[in-house]
Amino acid sequence: MSSTPAPRIDGRTPQQLRPITIERGWSKHAEGSVLISFGDTKVFCTASVTEGVPRWRKGSGEGWVTAEYSMLPRSTNTRGDREAVRGKIGGRTHEISRLIGRSLRAVIDYKSLGENTIVLDCDVLQADGGTRTAAITGAYVALADAVAWAQGKKLVKAGRKPLTDTVSAVSVGIVGGVPLLDLCYEEDVRAETDMNVVCTGDGRFVEVQGTAEAEPFDRKELNALLDLAVGGCEDLAALQREALEATR
Amino acid sequence: MSSTPAPRIDGRTPQQLRPITIERGWSKHAEGSVLISFGDTKVFCTASVTEGVPRWRKGSGEGWVTAEYSMLPRSTNTRGDREAVRGKIGGRTHEISRLIGRSLRAVIDYKSLGENTIVLDCDVLQADGGTRTAAITGAYVALADAVAWAQGKKLVKAGRKPLTDTVSAVSVGIVGGVPLLDLCYEEDVRAETDMNVVCTGDGRFVEVQGTAEAEPFDRKELNALLDLAVGGCEDLAALQREALEATR
Amino acid sequence: MSSTPAPRIDGRTPQQLRPITIERGWSKHAEGSVLISFGDTKVFCTASVTEGVPRWRKGSGEGWVTAEYSMLPRSTNTRGDREAVRGKIGGRTHEISRLIGRSLRAVIDYKSLGENTIVLDCDVLQADGGTRTAAITGAYVALADAVAWAQGKKLVKAGRKPLTDTVSAVSVGIVGGVPLLDLCYEEDVRAETDMNVVCTGDGRFVEVQGTAEAEPFDRKELNALLDLAVGGCEDLAALQREALEATR
Amino acid sequence: MSSTPAPRIDGRTPQQLRPITIERGWSKHAEGSVLISFGDTKVFCTASVTEGVPRWRKGSGEGWVTAEYSMLPRSTNTRGDREAVRGKIGGRTHEISRLIGRSLRAVIDYKSLGENTIVLDCDVLQADGGTRTAAITGAYVALADAVAWAQGKKLVKAGRKPLTDTVSAVSVGIVGGVPLLDLCYEEDVRAETDMNVVCTGDGRFVEVQGTAEAEPFDRKELNALLDLAVGGCEDLAALQREALEATR
Amino acid sequence: MSSTPAPRIDGRTPQQLRPITIERGWSKHAEGSVLISFGDTKVFCTASVTEGVPRWRKGSGEGWVTAEYSMLPRSTNTRGDREAVRGKIGGRTHEISRLIGRSLRAVIDYKSLGENTIVLDCDVLQADGGTRTAAITGAYVALADAVAWAQGKKLVKAGRKPLTDTVSAVSVGIVGGVPLLDLCYEEDVRAETDMNVVCTGDGRFVEVQGTAEAEPFDRKELNALLDLAVGGCEDLAALQREALEATR
Amino acid sequence: MSSTPAPRIDGRTPQQLRPITIERGWSKHAEGSVLISFGDTKVFCTASVTEGVPRWRKGSGEGWVTAEYSMLPRSTNTRGDREAVRGKIGGRTHEISRLIGRSLRAVIDYKSLGENTIVLDCDVLQADGGTRTAAITGAYVALADAVAWAQGKKLVKAGRKPLTDTVSAVSVGIVGGVPLLDLCYEEDVRAETDMNVVCTGDGRFVEVQGTAEAEPFDRKELNALLDLAVGGCEDLAALQREALEATR
Repeated sequence: MSSTPAPRIDGRTPQQLRPITIERGWSKHAEGSVLISFGDTKVFCTASVTEGVPRWRKGSGEGWVTAEYSMLPRSTNTRGDREAVRGKIGGRTHEISRLIGRSLRAVIDYKSLGENTIVLDCDVLQADGGTRTAAITGAYVALADAVAWAQGKKLVKAGRKPLTDTVSAVSVGIVGGVPLLDLCYEEDVRAETDMNVVCTGDGRFVEVQGTAEAEPFDRKELNALLDLAVGGCEDLAALQREALEATR
Repeated sequence: MSSTPAPRIDGRTPQQLRPITIERGWSKHAEGSVLISFGDTKVFCTASVTEGVPRWRKGSGEGWVTAEYSMLPRSTNTRGDREAVRGKIGGRTHEISRLIGRSLRAVIDYKSLGENTIVLDCDVLQADGGTRTAAITGAYVALADAVAWAQGKKLVKAGRKPLTDTVSAVSVGIVGGVPLLDLCYEEDVRAETDMNVVCTGDGRFVEVQGTAEAEPFDRKELNALLDLAVGGCEDLAALQREALEATR
Repeated sequence: MSSTPAPRIDGRTPQQLRPITIERGWSKHAEGSVLISFGDTKVFCTASVTEGVPRWRKGSGEGWVTAEYSMLPRSTNTRGDREAVRGKIGGRTHEISRLIGRSLRAVIDYKSLGENTIVLDCDVLQADGGTRTAAITGAYVALADAVAWAQGKKLVKAGRKPLTDTVSAVSVGIVGGVPLLDLCYEEDVRAETDMNVVCTGDGRFVEVQGTAEAEPFDRKELNALLDLAVGGCEDLAALQREALEATR
Repeated sequence: MSSTPAPRIDGRTPQQLRPITIERGWSKHAEGSVLISFGDTKVFCTASVTEGVPRWRKGSGEGWVTAEYSMLPRSTNTRGDREAVRGKIGGRTHEISRLIGRSLRAVIDYKSLGENTIVLDCDVLQADGGTRTAAITGAYVALADAVAWAQGKKLVKAGRKPLTDTVSAVSVGIVGGVPLLDLCYEEDVRAETDMNVVCTGDGRFVEVQGTAEAEPFDRKELNALLDLAVGGCEDLAALQREALEATR
Repeated sequence: MSSTPAPRIDGRTPQQLRPITIERGWSKHAEGSVLISFGDTKVFCTASVTEGVPRWRKGSGEGWVTAEYSMLPRSTNTRGDREAVRGKIGGRTHEISRLIGRSLRAVIDYKSLGENTIVLDCDVLQADGGTRTAAITGAYVALADAVAWAQGKKLVKAGRKPLTDTVSAVSVGIVGGVPLLDLCYEEDVRAETDMNVVCTGDGRFVEVQGTAEAEPFDRKELNALLDLAVGGCEDLAALQREALEATR
Repeated sequence: MSSTPAPRIDGRTPQQLRPITIERGWSKHAEGSVLISFGDTKVFCTASVTEGVPRWRKGSGEGWVTAEYSMLPRSTNTRGDREAVRGKIGGRTHEISRLIGRSLRAVIDYKSLGENTIVLDCDVLQADGGTRTAAITGAYVALADAVAWAQGKKLVKAGRKPLTDTVSAVSVGIVGGVPLLDLCYEEDVRAETDMNVVCTGDGRFVEVQGTAEAEPFDRKELNALLDLAVGGCEDLAALQREALEATR
């Protein structure tokens, strides 16, 4: 790892996030909705509340949270087929939907939520790397708004706090030997190692998914990446709080 | 038909469009892209150019234009299932995708386009009635930008005009006995008759699709609806031209 | 539009239907069944009555009518793939099934039908243009027989009339500048404009679906087509009544 | 097995076929087409010739014959779901399609057919037992007409005989202890043993498929059934020849 | 048929089975499980007991038995596609699953089984001809163990015998004019006629499925094949009993 | 974390693997095949070599390695639906197939492999936790045998080493506050944190996938899990080498 790295493609320092914007209330229908940008990556996140839970959970007194992720066909540089047209969901879509769902469930107190279900839809309008981490970070804000809505509607019992913490996610990777935070697409395709880290607001880990794209990575590299990611998630948590404190 | 109708739910006159906005360049990847709003209905339209044509058209020297329409799951008041998750596309989605494709092809000169394909993706971000007509109207603008891009890239031979005219669409309907232009959702569900009309810039018809929702309609009502629709399409054509003349 | 048009490919005048035959009772199992021919177009229509309605309609006291359209693989000049083998229904099939369903529902009084469902299956045995209009016209006769059967079985309360009118459909189009009624396949492929019109027995419109195949059409052409269609539907309504009055 | 059995439900003797009708030329499009009835069972069989063979057979100089079987939704007493709507073909349909294909291929000389493909579509319009055997018997006649058509078009080399024999099929079963030929539906559901036998014109076997529905069957019963079936196929072969000798 | 046939490819006499092994208790989870080998053909059979029956059988007091067959992708000489990946089950798989289910149901007394369901999963680990017959033969042993388990758990009423007999299956075929028992793959591909026979322990037939692969077969050949098969099934029934008498 | 943990459910120490067995040559057809057991978890891994590569890689001179994972329906305690029957592959299956593929590709030198494809099929015969890690560990051995086979067949150029290292995988988790290696099912369901780690033979990481099942985990816990996993992978690498050195 070089100590004085060359500036990044977009001029950022290695430990710098892209410009992040979080616009709440982007849908008039959804109970919570956010348009989040990590640089040129834009994800539209909605949180839909329905009373009741899936059959296997009925009568438990506990709620459920799940997520679906999708990319619009032309969110990427070349147009991809629509999964609805192909008639099946690809492995990557499945994998990310599951990751988002698990990440959000990590900060949900099912008992406090009561027998309500919240579905998070994360649709990528424009992709430039880090779509899954933007989706998790944005979905949290939509979820918080949906939970507040449910509390306002008395669907959640008074005095209960269905959310136990905030949750955010960021990608990190080693590019040209240098650990970098929040990779854009061009960095991502050149990364030797790629990692997505999901943290709660108190700095603990919900998910750590590191993959050697070219060369296996050693413990020292892994540690450097984790350090970067924890810092990035801290910054994102602050931005989430700021967005939620703003009056819509 | 009453001569002095009560004001509409949103205060419009019977022959008045909702506020229309057309934002070009909404995607950094697509060759043409537009976010169009008809009131609270918002459709994101991208036009993707690829060299070459489907197999059945190879060697013809002629291009092709096709469209895919979809609604985000929470674009509506209650969340709908994702068609990709259900593993099949519903009849309504098929029907509208085909309508959009036919409408745009009506103003394409295949020979001038040469063996290039343009796919129009129309994804409804928020629905409040008239999603198909907004999609057609927005897709035209995205298509025009994509054609211009292809001309810039010399994919289209110099001196050729792949677009023969503009095309736009609007819904009309009879609500409480009164013919109205550009129905919002609340009007749409109460309409006795519902019609979608697609016109070229010169005021001729590309598609006329009228459906009796409650009572069959007579020739006089049909004529009143056609009059309204032709006027609405004229207004939309002006807005399209204005949007395309603006510097992006 | 020429005033003294050349005779049509099969010798008909512009406002003449092809030979129409309506054979009732073509199935020993179905509650209503018809083999209808519009010239060489042959559609087998069955009406199946079942007690009860789809889940979303239970307890409403109202019935339901729906339709499924399909073409046998070799009903056309070259064999088409079976949709069951491809594992999905194409857009055109969906579109026509929905059109048939809507058309027949236009003459149903749901309350009088009571909580019964009638499914209309329209299978094209041989196609020569106008399959959807033959299907609607034949399905009405099958539906009428099925309703009579249900009345005989006391599924429908005494004194109720579930059918409010007859319904029939015909295609019209502009071929070589001349508006023609009831296009056969060879005319259909050459038509500049193609329109399907569904009328009730009292001459009002249930559906008007006009499409510019080559050139957009103007209001005068539209009016000429509507005139032709209304006349054709009148003739078809007379043939339907005649068929239903015959003793089976 | 009783020696003086009670008359059958429709008055036939145990070794008697139902009334068989074979109408050729039932489709104006298909190269061969037949509407065949075994009593109330009616199957519409078309044979479609296309030049060329599936990819795995290209360059072999040999042809191919395949079949697809389907039941119209209301061909049976209660309406069945359309397989195209369910999005998959059921096991029974697959099984019968494969049986028909194998049966017809048994009388095809692939070399003489040359690199041509014939697809047999067998669509059951009305079912009353024995639909697969009617389909095979009818498909043979449609195939013979299609082969003659191909010979007329010089797709088949002069002097070649692509058909080596006729082929027909019949069901047999043991009902109430009595072996019966050509079961109708009411007999079929009560049969203890059910067998479908496919024979060539020279009386040899192409397929023998016997299934114990209630009780296992012994060798003596098996022999009685085979005797009946061979006789029935002989009768059917005579009817096939007669139909083919008639001038269409 | 030659009277002094050349020895078979693996040195067997025409009426000799391949080495058969039946290993019970191959799964720690399933109520009954068997790894069966017919020479190099290895099929893993599990029997899964669940309380309750499919909806259409509820309240009947009777049980149900069904089967699913599948080949691992590399059970064959060249790798086949996974049916789960293709998204549909092929005709051959359907056909064999249905055959296995019918065969096992032939020895089940539904009333004695009570409202319990047993699913037989037969997964081919290695294929060398005769996978369906090995599956049936092995599935019977797994079924017997599952029934014993259900009796031990008192799911089956005391004194009831859900199994009425044993059932086994074997393939026979005519290869080079010689009728042979239990074909291995190399014999199978060269067979002129191929037959699968399923017999109960008392020597009666449950299924007889003979197919002419090359030439139609005559009655004498059919009889020779049936003789061979009956003998083979007798041997297999003895091996099944032996396996079940062994202490696991 | 407790310093003197209670013995594990099966008596192991926290850093002890379950008994591991690796049987090579378990299929007569596949170029490489292994039955691997991690305690009661048994996975059958085959490696299938085909000349050529997927279309997108043609002409690159480089090979390809991919994997498919599946569980037999009754590999688990209660029977699961077959994915082929449901007609789609679930998210978990997709996710694990992709993980196995990536893991094995990490030790492949595509250039040395040349334009050959190796497919790894990992079918779980019996599941007791850790099926994906057993699959990766076994698939490596099957892959090594397949590569050796390809070298023997001269599909790989002399002097080339397509495998750059070994690769193995193990699960670790925190159960009752204690970090444990190689969780069995009962430990897995009780784990607060669950991690799968894939290492090369030189101790570097290919994949690190940690998930908080109940509570988020901190950096100290993460480090303890990584230490355990690295030790476990070292032991597995030794067992892989031992298996490959044995004469088959």
